[in-house]
Amino acid sequence: MSARRPVILDCDPGTDDAVALWLALASPEIDLRLVTVAGGNAGLDRTVQNACAVIGLAGAVVPVVPGADRPLLGGFRGDGAVHGADGLAGIGLPPGPPPVRAVAADAIRTMLREARPGSVTLLGIAPATNLALALATEPALADRVQEVVLMAGAWGEGNWTPSAEFNAASDPEALAVLLGAGIAVTLVTLELTAQALVTPGRIASLRALGGGACLRTACDIMAAVPPSRRLGGEGHPLHDPCAVAWLAMPELFHAVPAAVAVDLGPGPARGRTHIDRWGRSGAAPNVTLVEALDADGFFALLGGRLARLP
Amino acid sequence: MSARRPVILDCDPGTDDAVALWLALASPEIDLRLVTVAGGNAGLDRTVQNACAVIGLAGAVVPVVPGADRPLLGGFRGDGAVHGADGLAGIGLPPGPPPVRAVAADAIRTMLREARPGSVTLLGIAPATNLALALATEPALADRVQEVVLMAGAWGEGNWTPSAEFNAASDPEALAVLLGAGIAVTLVTLELTAQALVTPGRIASLRALGGGACLRTACDIMAAVPPSRRLGGEGHPLHDPCAVAWLAMPELFHAVPAAVAVDLGPGPARGRTHIDRWGRSGAAPNVTLVEALDADGFFALLGGRLARLP
Amino acid sequence: MSARRPVILDCDPGTDDAVALWLALASPEIDLRLVTVAGGNAGLDRTVQNACAVIGLAGAVVPVVPGADRPLLGGFRGDGAVHGADGLAGIGLPPGPPPVRAVAADAIRTMLREARPGSVTLLGIAPATNLALALATEPALADRVQEVVLMAGAWGEGNWTPSAEFNAASDPEALAVLLGAGIAVTLVTLELTAQALVTPGRIASLRALGGGACLRTACDIMAAVPPSRRLGGEGHPLHDPCAVAWLAMPELFHAVPAAVAVDLGPGPARGRTHIDRWGRSGAAPNVTLVEALDADGFFALLGGRLARLP
Amino acid sequence: MSARRPVILDCDPGTDDAVALWLALASPEIDLRLVTVAGGNAGLDRTVQNACAVIGLAGAVVPVVPGADRPLLGGFRGDGAVHGADGLAGIGLPPGPPPVRAVAADAIRTMLREARPGSVTLLGIAPATNLALALATEPALADRVQEVVLMAGAWGEGNWTPSAEFNAASDPEALAVLLGAGIAVTLVTLELTAQALVTPGRIASLRALGGGACLRTACDIMAAVPPSRRLGGEGHPLHDPCAVAWLAMPELFHAVPAAVAVDLGPGPARGRTHIDRWGRSGAAPNVTLVEALDADGFFALLGGRLARLP
Repeated sequence: MSARRPVILDCDPGTDDAVALWLALASPEIDLRLVTVAGGNAGLDRTVQNACAVIGLAGAVVPVVPGADRPLLGGFRGDGAVHGADGLAGIGLPPGPPPVRAVAADAIRTMLREARPGSVTLLGIAPATNLALALATEPALADRVQEVVLMAGAWGEGNWTPSAEFNAASDPEALAVLLGAGIAVTLVTLELTAQALVTPGRIASLRALGGGACLRTACDIMAAVPPSRRLGGEGHPLHDPCAVAWLAMPELFHAVPAAVAVDLGPGPARGRTHIDRWGRSGAAPNVTLVEALDADGFFALLGGRLARLP
Repeated sequence: MSARRPVILDCDPGTDDAVALWLALASPEIDLRLVTVAGGNAGLDRTVQNACAVIGLAGAVVPVVPGADRPLLGGFRGDGAVHGADGLAGIGLPPGPPPVRAVAADAIRTMLREARPGSVTLLGIAPATNLALALATEPALADRVQEVVLMAGAWGEGNWTPSAEFNAASDPEALAVLLGAGIAVTLVTLELTAQALVTPGRIASLRALGGGACLRTACDIMAAVPPSRRLGGEGHPLHDPCAVAWLAMPELFHAVPAAVAVDLGPGPARGRTHIDRWGRSGAAPNVTLVEALDADGFFALLGGRLARLP
Repeated sequence: MSARRPVILDCDPGTDDAVALWLALASPEIDLRLVTVAGGNAGLDRTVQNACAVIGLAGAVVPVVPGADRPLLGGFRGDGAVHGADGLAGIGLPPGPPPVRAVAADAIRTMLREARPGSVTLLGIAPATNLALALATEPALADRVQEVVLMAGAWGEGNWTPSAEFNAASDPEALAVLLGAGIAVTLVTLELTAQALVTPGRIASLRALGGGACLRTACDIMAAVPPSRRLGGEGHPLHDPCAVAWLAMPELFHAVPAAVAVDLGPGPARGRTHIDRWGRSGAAPNVTLVEALDADGFFALLGGRLARLP
Repeated sequence: MSARRPVILDCDPGTDDAVALWLALASPEIDLRLVTVAGGNAGLDRTVQNACAVIGLAGAVVPVVPGADRPLLGGFRGDGAVHGADGLAGIGLPPGPPPVRAVAADAIRTMLREARPGSVTLLGIAPATNLALALATEPALADRVQEVVLMAGAWGEGNWTPSAEFNAASDPEALAVLLGAGIAVTLVTLELTAQALVTPGRIASLRALGGGACLRTACDIMAAVPPSRRLGGEGHPLHDPCAVAWLAMPELFHAVPAAVAVDLGPGPARGRTHIDRWGRSGAAPNVTLVEALDADGFFALLGGRLARLP
């Protein structure tokens, strides 16, 4: 196995962000240096509080820095229907250590400035505002980045508008900044996360592992999220942890090159990721598209890792 | 069973159009009064010739009227990669009776004008130019229409551009005209036709039925179409006959109301059908969306019916 | 001077349409063969009635054929603020002869079909729906057309939306059909018509000519139209007669080649004519753009001609 | 007269930027605290060098901080046709003091953070990237701003594309960020700057004032800019100094409230400012639109002020 990758994780907890944070903290492949937070699944105040609480429950020490409370353009719109008003589906956590008093994009830039070329992985599981502001303000820092892994987009049906996924639709211009930054981008889309379906059976298997408060709370959270009508009602997709697992155990995945353009127009396509998997648009591939997941392997990884946490 | 429905079929044969025409001709539920033709799967000269030949092989007498050789806006672009330069995947047919020397949109209007209110079904399995020109030129004729059934659109990935289906993308403004015409619209999309997968096994079963020249030629044509990478390579979707089967045996299908908007912008979403299946856009349902198909029942219908033809 | 040009005039009277009709009827350069009518400045019922009354007041015999009561896409929206609820600023006219019971686009096609190649001038001073339907339904008829002269568009500020002119914005897709029809298009825009400013002084000069009912009524109508805030409040632009005058006395005008694209997107630019006068877009010129007018000569022409009418 | 206003000036010199800088330095109403620089009229390296040289020639000491070398989205495109490869129409200046080694958006934020609420004027005469990055990264700083005055946009014809002005079209998303920042925005558009026409006669009058190197060089620069075909060829518009003069002598101007939307779509309207001066769009006014200029007063101000400089 390769050495631990230094990772900056940008999140908006969010039920699946919480599980993703625990998976990142529990994975030796990931050296989690910085957690930045955006408004998204809930408002910024809640997502910051949740990020701190999640990290605190794991007994970990990682700086949490608040960032964007709104997208580059337009106002904030949360996703209370899935994540609840508190962003964690109503599962209360004890407060964590306080966040750092700084600005997320600045903290990202500082860390990149001090890093070696090609060394840092950006892991974005929120609207991409913070990452975009950092790279748009200081484009030369792109050379410090090894890879940007994003949970964003869909080549099929959307989950926020009929044609767009929540993170991409929440700040399409930010996603476009990242796609144009000259950095290797890996995209984990709705089609991939639909394969990571949380079902009652899978929750039961995870609970059977025992573990500590983190795994138990993760199960409580997953059990509280309503099933997805879009996916037939048998469960809900565990979006964000898929992006973490891509770093922790890439052999669980199959990926292909693809050409992606984010729709920035004012019409009903706004925020859609037009993903050309078949070379029909003539555009050169600009992302690594994660297409397939070994779902059982993924949930085994998740359980095994979270069981190590307090 | 209900009485035979008077039907105007607008097509662009096209391999699956040929099968659809035979299914319509062989189905007692359908009273095929008029066949209009557009350029689409091949250029207009070929699609007209093919429509005549297909009808001729069945020994049927239905007027075939040529129509649009291009969409309302922009130029003609065919789909030779799927249907071949001749539109029938290279399967030669003997020439049929000649087409009527008239204009498709005029013929549609004449038939509607002479019909009783709410009596005629429009069955569109091509770019919608002909139907749109008829209804835009004489909007009052909308009251003669019982239902417009269209093979068009997709709520997921496209088959022509990354986000748009071939018929919808070939003339999005025409589709928008139909959606705004005040007529009941039923949409058969790529997600439905993906369930009607033509596989070597299904072709073998159809061949085993024997039948006459029409069924044998249908099998030859289906065997000559390349498998769809988009659907995993195991077969190809039999798009247009699904729309005919909706009229012939609706009990094979499950349909729901949905809100659809066609993307008319200049960007990469052009021609996409934004299909809101979950009420997320707040728009009122404006189509009947055919979501599910009993595939085995469908191929049984197809074989049983085509076997009756010469 | 050249021989009389056979002209089909498509209008939506409309205060300035009325004046334009009289100018056309009074001009020996114009052989007015057919008047087609669309909804626009008022609803179709009123615009047809107005066209008949205007022609009747002139004692002329020209077939008037009703056409589109709505644009290709979307619903009808009139312009009552300028033209009044009756379309003629409240100036009542005696009823004219009844319209022909036919469809405008059909009448246009019939006349074109019977004409020699390159012989007919289409003069469009309304939303372009009727002309577009004719040419989209039978594209081969484009070769019968000598020129399409349109009052449509603006390279500067709009008069209907901040960026779009009324006729262009009322049916942008129809205008796009004409621009793509392979016909020579001449565009009379708001910048040209702003030079034909109707002021109290100019109305007084016209009244001083005496004339018959047509000139007197034209003056009454022009006097009843409110001044244009957009043009500083000193008068209002006499849009449509400029397009007629282009045919009657082209030496009053200066025109240049330009590249025009109509905005068909869903945003605030919808209906804008992007007019490249300086070769900045790299697009090849596709219209003759009428840029400058001898305003005094224009009003002298108008008075002289209308004074000949009853 | 009110006290000196603390001003942050964001520029891309640029021939008219140079004149604008000198006017700002020479105007007692303006307390020029910070000059930030973007790529625009020339590439960033040149615009920074030019800003330093312009300030150096005036013998002034103001920190110059380099910023964005590209817009938020897409790549840099300069305007060499107007400003020359060097950005100053070929008029060489002696090098000025070096720029500060910092990032423009950071310098703006630092100055805003230390300012009293409602105290700082942002004067933007370049693509708005730097100002947008500052306010998007730290939206709460909007309350420190008294007013944003921008040379940007057009309600009529564009000067960069047929429908868009150079600054607005160079970074439309940045302009949209400023319009959505909850700050009072004043817009100086092409229609206003067209009134500040630099003609040979006006240059001669300015030269007759004598003055020092700054005024002489300003005249040399203005004399080297080609006349504007768009404005009839008699001169060229002195865009950016108009925005400075709005702060220095607002009584020269007439302004009205207006509703502005920047076009962010992918079509030919991209970057257009849709400016509703007549309440037609129904949108509430969101800018102060400077409509008219006392041109003679403006050039008198310009000459009088620049004559005070070394």
